Amino acid sequence: MLKPLGDRVILQASEEEEQTVGGIVLASNAQEKPTTGKVISVGAGRVLDNGDSVAPSVKEGDTVMFDKYAGTQVTYDGADYLVLHEKDIVAIVE
Amino acid sequence: MLKPLGDRVILQASEEEEQTVGGIVLASNAQEKPTTGKVISVGAGRVLDNGDSVAPSVKEGDTVMFDKYAGTQVTYDGADYLVLHEKDIVAIVE
Amino acid sequence: MLKPLGDRVILQASEEEEQTVGGIVLASNAQEKPTTGKVISVGAGRVLDNGDSVAPSVKEGDTVMFDKYAGTQVTYDGADYLVLHEKDIVAIVE
Amino acid sequence: MLKPLGDRVILQASEEEEQTVGGIVLASNAQEKPTTGKVISVGAGRVLDNGDSVAPSVKEGDTVMFDKYAGTQVTYDGADYLVLHEKDIVAIVE
Amino acid sequence: MLKPLGDRVILQASEEEEQTVGGIVLASNAQEKPTTGKVISVGAGRVLDNGDSVAPSVKEGDTVMFDKYAGTQVTYDGADYLVLHEKDIVAIVE
Amino acid sequence: MLKPLGDRVILQASEEEEQTVGGIVLASNAQEKPTTGKVISVGAGRVLDNGDSVAPSVKEGDTVMFDKYAGTQVTYDGADYLVLHEKDIVAIVE
Amino acid sequence: MLKPLGDRVILQASEEEEQTVGGIVLASNAQEKPTTGKVISVGAGRVLDNGDSVAPSVKEGDTVMFDKYAGTQVTYDGADYLVLHEKDIVAIVE
Repeated sequence: MLKPLGDRVILQASEEEEQTVGGIVLASNAQEKPTTGKVISVGAGRVLDNGDSVAPSVKEGDTVMFDKYAGTQVTYDGADYLVLHEKDIVAIVE
Repeated sequence: MLKPLGDRVILQASEEEEQTVGGIVLASNAQEKPTTGKVISVGAGRVLDNGDSVAPSVKEGDTVMFDKYAGTQVTYDGADYLVLHEKDIVAIVE
Repeated sequence: MLKPLGDRVILQASEEEEQTVGGIVLASNAQEKPTTGKVISVGAGRVLDNGDSVAPSVKEGDTVMFDKYAGTQVTYDGADYLVLHEKDIVAIVE
Repeated sequence: MLKPLGDRVILQASEEEEQTVGGIVLASNAQEKPTTGKVISVGAGRVLDNGDSVAPSVKEGDTVMFDKYAGTQVTYDGADYLVLHEKDIVAIVE
Repeated sequence: MLKPLGDRVILQASEEEEQTVGGIVLASNAQEKPTTGKVISVGAGRVLDNGDSVAPSVKEGDTVMFDKYAGTQVTYDGADYLVLHEKDIVAIVE
Repeated sequence: MLKPLGDRVILQASEEEEQTVGGIVLASNAQEKPTTGKVISVGAGRVLDNGDSVAPSVKEGDTVMFDKYAGTQVTYDGADYLVLHEKDIVAIVE
Repeated sequence: MLKPLGDRVILQASEEEEQTVGGIVLASNAQEKPTTGKVISVGAGRVLDNGDSVAPSVKEGDTVMFDKYAGTQVTYDGADYLVLHEKDIVAIVE
């Protein structure tokens, strides 16, 4: 099992396909469209300057939207995961 | 439903059309003109260094002006929304 | 009415004309000359790291000098306003 | 009268002439030589993170040395002044 | 023995081979894939602004994933180690 | 007399000559070699975020080493001085 | 004697030779390899935002590894020393 450190969250990403016209990626504008994923595990939370930890705002099983270019891909037991900082999670899909 | 995290706010944007002359975008000057939108949902607020949260200054239903190039577009249930940080909201239109 | 958020201030600007010689803008030196404006409305003030707000140093009706390139132009009810952060106001003209 | 905001100070500058040889500005080295001026008025001081203000270290009438390229020029009642942050004042000439 | 300072951690790295096709390094995308290593020793932890230390989240013997380009290589007693800051450790492999 | 502000220190510098070979400045490597000087006067010290001042670590008459490219040259009463921030003083020569 | 200020440490460095092949410096990769040195003297330590000092983690006589490109070379009494900030010391060699 992977246990993320600090304010990190591990996701199983379900990236949207990039829309293409005849093979050309269409960037409608410069704003990045986030994609969605499922939270696999969460760290202990960000450590404040006074030493306390802030409990994460997401929990295992949550479906979340995140910034497309955030995070780091890791491979574990043959499966791909995305590790990102909680601040890169945009919203919870309920 | 989309629940924004932290100091994020979800808006339904009503972007002004860019003024063009014969198809050329007119940038009258380098200052970005903000556009308006309606607040759909707000996060729990910014977490201070002492661990407390600052209640957001906007609430659901508010009409707000925001910086044109701020935020991230998300698509949910076929509708487009804009997720931005509260600090990118310039003013409430009353 | 427009209600600015945080440490923002809304001004009705009275920009000085740029001095030109035969249509060429004269930049006497690299230092920006501020312009003046009248304060229309002020936000609740900057939020400190301990959660308190700092009351703004300007009030409605004040005539102020501000950095020429600071702020964002907004249009409301057909009139142009300038929204800027209080820190970009240089001095009050008394 | 001009009343500077925050940690700003208004000076009447007495800039040294730049030394030139045949019209060429002589930059003896890359270090900026500060110039001197007289303090006309001072703001209420820098606001700390705990909300308190730090009383300025200079007062009206002081002759001060400041970094040559610091500050913003303002014109008021036909006279030129220099508005700069207290941190750009290098020393008091006593 | 090497005793790391502050929030540093010393690892014995087991870097993944970079995948190549005919000798060309394949960069599938711009996201760095972390590699794994074993924790050899840990420092006393990060010093907070109030003077306290935050105990590290990893301990000797832990297998961890870290950002590929983080850290500094050191050679000690003929063996190569990697010294990195705790914040560059992505997750603990359990 | 010159009275430096804040964490500034005024020195009478005794710059080492730059070593040259046939007029070419020899930069043996990219690391700046500090020079020495004598402390003429010191400011009241750096103001902390809680409003207190930190007493300077150097006093009048100290001989100090400082980073070669730090500080600002000032001329006062026909003599050249160097004004620099206390943090740019590397060591006291005892 | 040289007495370093703040969080500075003075070392007598024993730099490793750079490995060359036929006179060409071999940079195996972009990660800097630290070198070792002996601590000659230490400053009073870093001053925290609350005014307290953090006692240094190294003491006179310690053998330490440091980042190769950190620090400033000083010459004193004909001997070369390296002055660096404590944060640039990677590990103590015990």
